Amino acid sequence: MKQIGRLHVITDFTFQQKHSHTELAMMAIQGGADSIQFRQKHGSLRDLLASAHAVQLVCSSNNIPFIVNDRVDIAQAVHADGVHLGQVDMPASLARAILGPDFIIGITTPDSSLASKAFSDGADYVGFGPVYPTKSKSNPIGVQGIEGLAKFCNTAKLPVIAIAGITAERSVEVMKAGAYGVAVMTAVSLAKNPTMEVQRFSEVVCRQ
Amino acid sequence: MKQIGRLHVITDFTFQQKHSHTELAMMAIQGGADSIQFRQKHGSLRDLLASAHAVQLVCSSNNIPFIVNDRVDIAQAVHADGVHLGQVDMPASLARAILGPDFIIGITTPDSSLASKAFSDGADYVGFGPVYPTKSKSNPIGVQGIEGLAKFCNTAKLPVIAIAGITAERSVEVMKAGAYGVAVMTAVSLAKNPTMEVQRFSEVVCRQ
Repeated sequence: MKQIGRLHVITDFTFQQKHSHTELAMMAIQGGADSIQFRQKHGSLRDLLASAHAVQLVCSSNNIPFIVNDRVDIAQAVHADGVHLGQVDMPASLARAILGPDFIIGITTPDSSLASKAFSDGADYVGFGPVYPTKSKSNPIGVQGIEGLAKFCNTAKLPVIAIAGITAERSVEVMKAGAYGVAVMTAVSLAKNPTMEVQRFSEVVCRQ
Repeated sequence: MKQIGRLHVITDFTFQQKHSHTELAMMAIQGGADSIQFRQKHGSLRDLLASAHAVQLVCSSNNIPFIVNDRVDIAQAVHADGVHLGQVDMPASLARAILGPDFIIGITTPDSSLASKAFSDGADYVGFGPVYPTKSKSNPIGVQGIEGLAKFCNTAKLPVIAIAGITAERSVEVMKAGAYGVAVMTAVSLAKNPTMEVQRFSEVVCRQ
């Protein structure tokens, strides 16, 4: 049985270098995150493999699903539980063919027709955003807002993980809008106390 | 039975944009290349997949092994016959675990100890170079020369594909030094007539 988390903490080593990927994963799990996503856009494959492998060990020893952002090859190499793919990454249907039925596949889908495609391509969940403005990603498609999220959740056939600019306070209305869960990155990585910050999210998001 | 080519033509769209990857592959096969390697360092994964898939179709319809440089995920997605990996890419042992026994795996190995490791890791051939100076790759380890190649071939337990700065003329001494074959890129892609240039290589390299 696939375990799709509600509170996805994305490890970030781009917007901060105070905590390593592994440290962030440990703090997030301690705070109550039920999914960890490894996200690193730069560096050699060997470095990415080493970092991803270290995070995978933390997740597997805590029985928390470990998801790799973007890279199907890294996800396979480190025996991750899942992969999260954007619209410019490997298409979900190809990823499913490569990874098999037991792998968690999440797809970022900025609109309902792409969400339908993700469903028919065999994805397990969809990422939707940006719900709020965020500095950690350029958002050419524009902010969708809570209304856009609610409309999207209303038609999506897969669990919706909301992303971008979500704070612990905002996650109340995000969940009310129909999201299955949230994905957070800098809200945690840049927090004074990442563990406590995750705990604040967890109290809202994981109490469903 | 794996078919390891002797004349690997690497499709290049970085040093020239006159010919597409697919056009280069077609001209190379027409000229007598018995292996095509797709090499593209930049661009979105979707673009890489589209280009690689087009080259794969050309290769499979001509029964020529199609090898993807660097990316295990792309090689899997387009059903390539093999993957060629550098020392900063996926380690051969991991690639073998992911890709299975029938996939061709080539590893760039600048010295004999790395060649031994490639052998024990399950690689099918090793790439060795730079044999001559080349402008298409920075060569921090220095040019190995024909003597370096001969020494390397003498101890390598796998077929050696020589690379870097190899011209049709130079391929005579390269093969004499013990190479199983050669890999060429700009010597073909920048040639006035790529098909004829490949033919000149082929007459030396594939006549073994």
